[in-house]
Amino acid sequence: MSSTTEQATGARTWSVAEHLDDILTAVQPLEPIELNLLDAQGCVLVEQVTVPVALPPFDNSSMDGYAVRAADTERASEASPAVLTVIGDVAAGSSGTELTVGPGRAARIMTGAPLPPGADAVVPVEWTDGGTGAGPARTMAPHSASPQGSGGQVRVHRPVTPHAYVRARGGDVCAGDVALEAGTVLGPPQIALLSAIGRPAARVRPRPRVVVLSTGSELAQPGEELAAGQIYDSNSFALAAAAKDAGAIVYRVGAVTDDAETLRATIEDQLIRADLLVTTGGVSVGAYDVVKEALTAVAEEEPGEPDGEPDEATEGAVGEDAERAVHRAHVDFRTLAMQPGKPQGFGTIGPDRTPILTLPGNPVSSYVSFELFVRPAIRAMMGLADLHRPVVRATLLPPHGAGDEEPAPLTSPEGKRQFLRGAYTGGERPEVRPVGGSGSHLIGALAHADALIVLPETVTEAAWGSEVEVVLLG
Amino acid sequence: MSSTTEQATGARTWSVAEHLDDILTAVQPLEPIELNLLDAQGCVLVEQVTVPVALPPFDNSSMDGYAVRAADTERASEASPAVLTVIGDVAAGSSGTELTVGPGRAARIMTGAPLPPGADAVVPVEWTDGGTGAGPARTMAPHSASPQGSGGQVRVHRPVTPHAYVRARGGDVCAGDVALEAGTVLGPPQIALLSAIGRPAARVRPRPRVVVLSTGSELAQPGEELAAGQIYDSNSFALAAAAKDAGAIVYRVGAVTDDAETLRATIEDQLIRADLLVTTGGVSVGAYDVVKEALTAVAEEEPGEPDGEPDEATEGAVGEDAERAVHRAHVDFRTLAMQPGKPQGFGTIGPDRTPILTLPGNPVSSYVSFELFVRPAIRAMMGLADLHRPVVRATLLPPHGAGDEEPAPLTSPEGKRQFLRGAYTGGERPEVRPVGGSGSHLIGALAHADALIVLPETVTEAAWGSEVEVVLLG
Repeated sequence: MSSTTEQATGARTWSVAEHLDDILTAVQPLEPIELNLLDAQGCVLVEQVTVPVALPPFDNSSMDGYAVRAADTERASEASPAVLTVIGDVAAGSSGTELTVGPGRAARIMTGAPLPPGADAVVPVEWTDGGTGAGPARTMAPHSASPQGSGGQVRVHRPVTPHAYVRARGGDVCAGDVALEAGTVLGPPQIALLSAIGRPAARVRPRPRVVVLSTGSELAQPGEELAAGQIYDSNSFALAAAAKDAGAIVYRVGAVTDDAETLRATIEDQLIRADLLVTTGGVSVGAYDVVKEALTAVAEEEPGEPDGEPDEATEGAVGEDAERAVHRAHVDFRTLAMQPGKPQGFGTIGPDRTPILTLPGNPVSSYVSFELFVRPAIRAMMGLADLHRPVVRATLLPPHGAGDEEPAPLTSPEGKRQFLRGAYTGGERPEVRPVGGSGSHLIGALAHADALIVLPETVTEAAWGSEVEVVLLG
Repeated sequence: MSSTTEQATGARTWSVAEHLDDILTAVQPLEPIELNLLDAQGCVLVEQVTVPVALPPFDNSSMDGYAVRAADTERASEASPAVLTVIGDVAAGSSGTELTVGPGRAARIMTGAPLPPGADAVVPVEWTDGGTGAGPARTMAPHSASPQGSGGQVRVHRPVTPHAYVRARGGDVCAGDVALEAGTVLGPPQIALLSAIGRPAARVRPRPRVVVLSTGSELAQPGEELAAGQIYDSNSFALAAAAKDAGAIVYRVGAVTDDAETLRATIEDQLIRADLLVTTGGVSVGAYDVVKEALTAVAEEEPGEPDGEPDEATEGAVGEDAERAVHRAHVDFRTLAMQPGKPQGFGTIGPDRTPILTLPGNPVSSYVSFELFVRPAIRAMMGLADLHRPVVRATLLPPHGAGDEEPAPLTSPEGKRQFLRGAYTGGERPEVRPVGGSGSHLIGALAHADALIVLPETVTEAAWGSEVEVVLLG
């Protein structure tokens, strides 16, 4: 990327696809770290995990019942039960070697308990009298209440075959098996498997730390009194929420005033906790477009710096000169062939070449820009394969409340990709209806939309009833 | 609900639907609280929010350009521009009353800045010479670099009509409009709107605090050495992750040993931070089924306590008797007509009648039970309308790697609703294939599934190629 003002002010426009490609080419997946399982939830595994010990680690009972020699039950029936001597209990957690089941013997055994030596099958308690001498049992009495249940005799009413109700060692996974491949996203079932094979942690790409800051001298914080000419800062809230939804750890910085020095100092401060910086506002063609001014002016001071490689000679001087980091800004301000969201910037900043995306300031523009450019960048940094929102096709219908008379068809400027807010209905015949107008300040409508209607560069008019592309949000 | 042992051991079985109904009837949405916007993300609004001040709060410019009287530009063209005297700048954030635009005058104005008195339209800077006296401008020079741009003359190359590029006060939402209805889930666009109308916080149902604890003397923690007869605790990790995914704030308690007193004391300790308790294990018919023992035995001591209303006479004694809370357990242990997940318990516990769900201990059973019963309960407590995972229909295909010979059809016990793990492929003709067998200890297969294949109570065999119901996970 270059940061000359020629490009910033030049006539060239970039397409949405070109801009996104440039961002995704430049943004790298974060370096992996070892995270405790529950901290790794939602992250991408970077190692192939193999199974260290078989699961289950030992033959064990799948039922509450009696560990027996199957041969001893061969002719058992309710009329003529097999009567076995109960030699004790095998509870889950016992080592399974305390008892040996000889011929004519049985050990009371609990689900998950190791099959004792000598036994080759388990008879469910419901197939016995439970040691009561009465009819078929439905349950065992708690051991603490009636310890005598672990002795005496048990009547077995049905035969079992060898291995019945026994889960064999390694029946789930074997030592050396691949448990999970690199690239797996760790959800609850994957966390179940990792913990089951004894892994307290996993090597994953961490969630990116995203610093969101809005700019604009007109911005008041919600809860404050609005002075004349002020509006409330909504971008920093909306984008912080959207970044969290995308998977990031978010730091929201309050609005920064339209002063280049203040903005530089703020960015400088924030760099230490940022894997990605996102700003809103100050990137258009105005005389107070502070983001552009702060990040462009600086680049102009260093016209000779090579594009890409850090300047080794000055690397050590960072600590001595607080402005060095911002001096290393390489931000390319562009005009995009899209609506809303025409003015965009993207580059890197600071000694670690932290990626920065500078979005326009209109609320709808910044939100749409986030969806199109920042969300995929965050997901790429997480190492996710699936970067994009689902895109579907739907029939375009007039807005609700349009009345009997059919409204004029949707129009879109030629050569621009337009993103209108829509309300989507799925099902067999998906439909979408516009919500609100195309104005990039219409936050009320945005809050009632769940989709973006895409009108490509070549489309200037979309008739009601035609099929359109729809990006599904949230 | 009742907690008699007759029910716990009785022959009656409950259907999945009955059990879920009972849970959803008993579980109440949490009391609303006021949360800061970003803390309220994902929560359900309980108030109807109206707009206190119009958005935008004042007429303002939608472009960087010049605030003019439209009449002054009526005959403007590139060949014969309208020449206006620039009387100053109106930046975003200025009060908009410093300047008055008289005939033949213009004020340089930035996007979002208030339209100054006298002006009725904005000319985009690209339609002017930008005050340079040269050709059409593409941008304004930063004010800080060239303050002279706010004076002198500007040549306007195109006429504008009144109201052009002016966003009217209230053009987005008007004071008194309903911004958001009660029941709205607060995502990024809704948070955008709330902040835009000046709301720093919203009244929402909070995320439930869910305490997850597993039970079993056989459980070791991941990272520890496995002793003979031990397996790793995976349930508490899997369910903690699943509860977080469902929207809860989760506290994972390490595995509790199979001792009723220890379990009672642990539950007692945890109650203070629980809106919902979830346990795994110890609910079947074994002699060491500690959850059942701890919560049933206690109930038996208080057979006369009325079902529903707290005992006023003893209410004050809670602090004096640490066991009172557990004494107030009303847990109904049931046999469900489902596989996996037959033994289930549900009730309330402690002075606040905190809901408790006691799930079976086999890893697949506990996970499937969570999906079916706990997840909807968490979402009901959040006040969400949409409690359930998406359910679709798909063609049942044999498992991958089944070879040339068609495997035997899937079977299911009559009268039981079976949930098998599956891999789902969406699209025009959705398909699902079983992953692993039906064993409730098969965690390896669970980690490679993304769906549950449902075989209803009446189905005993499902042929390959038939259509089945599928619950989509994650």
